[in-house]
Amino acid sequence: MAVNKGVENAVGRKIPSTINGKPAVPFQGIGKHQPAGRKYAPPIPSCANYPADGNKLVKDLRTALINAGLRDGMTVSTHHHFRDGDLIAHALFTIASELDVKDLVWFPSASFPCHEALIRYLEDGTIHHIEGSLNGPLGRYASEGKMRGVGVLRSHGGRYQAVQDGEVQIDIAVIAAPAADSFGNANGLSGPSACGLLGFALADAQYAGHVIVATDHLVDFPCYPWQIQGNYVDQVVKMEQIGIPEKIVSGTTEITRSPDRLFIAELTARFCEEAGLIRDGFSFQAGAGGTALSIGNYFGEIMRRRGIKARFARGGSNKYLVQMLEEGLIDYILDGQTFDLEGVRSMREHPRHVDTSPFTSYNYHGKGNFAGLVDIVILGATEVDVNFNANVVTHSDGVLLHGIGGWQNCLFSKNVILPLPLFRDRVPVIRDEVTTLCGPGELIDIIVTERGIAVNPRREDLLERLKKSTLPIKSIAQLKAEAEQICGIPDPAPFTEKVVAVVKWVDGTVIDVVRQVRAS
Amino acid sequence: MAVNKGVENAVGRKIPSTINGKPAVPFQGIGKHQPAGRKYAPPIPSCANYPADGNKLVKDLRTALINAGLRDGMTVSTHHHFRDGDLIAHALFTIASELDVKDLVWFPSASFPCHEALIRYLEDGTIHHIEGSLNGPLGRYASEGKMRGVGVLRSHGGRYQAVQDGEVQIDIAVIAAPAADSFGNANGLSGPSACGLLGFALADAQYAGHVIVATDHLVDFPCYPWQIQGNYVDQVVKMEQIGIPEKIVSGTTEITRSPDRLFIAELTARFCEEAGLIRDGFSFQAGAGGTALSIGNYFGEIMRRRGIKARFARGGSNKYLVQMLEEGLIDYILDGQTFDLEGVRSMREHPRHVDTSPFTSYNYHGKGNFAGLVDIVILGATEVDVNFNANVVTHSDGVLLHGIGGWQNCLFSKNVILPLPLFRDRVPVIRDEVTTLCGPGELIDIIVTERGIAVNPRREDLLERLKKSTLPIKSIAQLKAEAEQICGIPDPAPFTEKVVAVVKWVDGTVIDVVRQVRAS
Repeated sequence: MAVNKGVENAVGRKIPSTINGKPAVPFQGIGKHQPAGRKYAPPIPSCANYPADGNKLVKDLRTALINAGLRDGMTVSTHHHFRDGDLIAHALFTIASELDVKDLVWFPSASFPCHEALIRYLEDGTIHHIEGSLNGPLGRYASEGKMRGVGVLRSHGGRYQAVQDGEVQIDIAVIAAPAADSFGNANGLSGPSACGLLGFALADAQYAGHVIVATDHLVDFPCYPWQIQGNYVDQVVKMEQIGIPEKIVSGTTEITRSPDRLFIAELTARFCEEAGLIRDGFSFQAGAGGTALSIGNYFGEIMRRRGIKARFARGGSNKYLVQMLEEGLIDYILDGQTFDLEGVRSMREHPRHVDTSPFTSYNYHGKGNFAGLVDIVILGATEVDVNFNANVVTHSDGVLLHGIGGWQNCLFSKNVILPLPLFRDRVPVIRDEVTTLCGPGELIDIIVTERGIAVNPRREDLLERLKKSTLPIKSIAQLKAEAEQICGIPDPAPFTEKVVAVVKWVDGTVIDVVRQVRAS
Repeated sequence: MAVNKGVENAVGRKIPSTINGKPAVPFQGIGKHQPAGRKYAPPIPSCANYPADGNKLVKDLRTALINAGLRDGMTVSTHHHFRDGDLIAHALFTIASELDVKDLVWFPSASFPCHEALIRYLEDGTIHHIEGSLNGPLGRYASEGKMRGVGVLRSHGGRYQAVQDGEVQIDIAVIAAPAADSFGNANGLSGPSACGLLGFALADAQYAGHVIVATDHLVDFPCYPWQIQGNYVDQVVKMEQIGIPEKIVSGTTEITRSPDRLFIAELTARFCEEAGLIRDGFSFQAGAGGTALSIGNYFGEIMRRRGIKARFARGGSNKYLVQMLEEGLIDYILDGQTFDLEGVRSMREHPRHVDTSPFTSYNYHGKGNFAGLVDIVILGATEVDVNFNANVVTHSDGVLLHGIGGWQNCLFSKNVILPLPLFRDRVPVIRDEVTTLCGPGELIDIIVTERGIAVNPRREDLLERLKKSTLPIKSIAQLKAEAEQICGIPDPAPFTEKVVAVVKWVDGTVIDVVRQVRAS
């Protein structure tokens, strides 16, 4: 059998011809793959088959799953708005295991350390494989070659795209909802498990064959805003507890205190100002890491000093961003997930703290999306290479430890900046070639490190504008050399040939694979 | 040729086997027709084919229509949120005519007297036929047998259903938007043509092959709330003027001063109270006619007196409903269209004045809709018959003069009340058989007239509760006899055999036809 010989894709990575038995399309270059088909078309429902009075409450999740026809081989989905406080995925697979259902595909919008508990169900065959980010323990499990199927890693936008295009057909979506009515309208704004919004479950609601809303806070119709629309919902379940509040919104995300990271943040902000990127009415997306938060704060200082404001900030929101909104430094927060209680409160109260979704913000198979409108985006990476290609899923030792999140989608913003330490644990971050290629270098504009700033040579406009700058502008090769002088050149990752996961590009093509790591 | 012999449907009306060349499914009874297929699947778009910076502005509507590939035989759609102040449909067909495009199907969400100007384009072949309400002059034109194709009348929910299910495939949607950004996000809340919301254009945005947003009030991204999402929009056009403000929100809808109508309104409210329908947390939908407004006011009085409130009122909103919201008599207005400037202001300002759409409220091919959750709905009719069947599109002389609106959809509410004068212009409203059957009597519960109230015998619960009432409860036969005693029995409508329009039921089946009226 000559299957899965694989082909080289447009960034020179060898891609299998099939993944979990389905044909794989190799990455063809940015904007090169033209989708040919039509969106996925769910079966037409009829009100005749739903309660006349709109009350879709059933006894419990077990009943709902049986009603939904849960059976071997189905694809079931959950969202990750509860982050490390999620109780739904575990409840779902425990019931599936009790019902002796096998070979499910779990299709979460992301996984978290709490999902280590699901390894049991990967072991006993309840779950065949996971399509979604494989963070921490699940990533290590996959890297060790233990998962039956191949993991499929997608960006948030890529997940929406895959569902919309029918690449992934969700049989049953279980949508944990901090507040819901018995018709199925739901939001994340109130109740003990309040998480802000539910945008990551939008595709699931719109396209899944069967949609179950699970809540621990049932409210009278209408549960408004209906971030999830009851018109897409089959059943509603009231549960004792759907999430662990203190793990949903940890409230611990704080500005970095590390002098190195503060310096990188300051350099990044100075770069943006000198390059003319911070103008009245500009827009930015930072993120929730300590360095990113710090950059946001520097942006705030610059705006105050110059008496200008931002038209919008894309979130993950947090107390710092909320403060800027309330101070009038930002007209709108366009928020994809709230990271702390202040974010939740602000979204509930402030008319210009807006919930968004991967559809509005990230879906590459839409008629545009918001990412392209953002002036400055601050992202992380585990590695970058001399061609500005970057990795966000594996470490240099080859172990899969992170999901893609919105990272790939944000690369389409106007100025993509990666503030990075030059090395971590004495491993240089700049490599000749990244271990896993998640984002092509042509979309990455600036690398800011504590020892200098590298601008992608493609951005002649920026280089021109910064000609007379006192900022430490260097070539990326120079930065790499400096790191290697200190740390040496790291060994390549100890991969076997076996593919344990693939990394999808935003258009559904495969940009790279992750291989099994040889036991050390 | 033995085509279009027709069959009798479940309410005994003869239905042609095809309409405009497409097969017609006869009405099979309420909840009997089970849709078998899948939702319509639009082609998958790609961001690669849209401006990287999200700016979709083009020079003018003519350019946009040419870019969209406007050509013979296409189906083009507009919405009716501008009511009699719409300038877009005329602009659109004038351009089509100049471009010598023929045989278009116009698919509006409703038509108004201002659209009389389009008869010219029906005459010259630019428009082949209209699928949508045929009000006033266009209705008369169709009734006289002058339209080339057969008109297709649908409820608001039926229009969404038809688009969702692919029965109508919109080639180009032109969405007039009071406010929009260059990405295509749009709403009806501000600008000179503010109309409140844009829900009637939702299906068009989601499913049309090509979507053009036309605005006279371009705002910076993000135009929020995005009642229309830019991610569905292909092009944006800035125009001088898209609507005539004073005709969009006339502000003239006032409570009736007619003593007869006030009496009917009072009887209706008393009936609702005595029947126990007005409870704390109840819900109602009245409407914008003089009698309906008056009933709403009586409801307000009852709530004040009893110290209770309504959980929600479904709109069309107007100053009376807004006042009740602001007074705290109603928790939420779930609004499908704003009828006056107070409605627009309230929707813009009040967090619980909510814009809805035919998808949320009326689509029968959803997993439920809001209509079924409403306790009391007040509707009109041109005729009812002794079996409580009702007509809303033709008059007793057979002339097509009205659209269905949300009328059919609202029949699924818990208590459907038709307050009607016993006769109009000396023509009795209660007939042995309605001229056109738009709604089956089994869904109509109560007829309130100035001479008495008829309760559908199916509603034994209501009859039981009102056994000791002093209200003038009569049989519908009795009411009919009283009217005929005064006015005599009207002649049947002078129809020829030619079908000029069909009336769809909420599930896409055909419940009746409208025939050509013999020239008098």
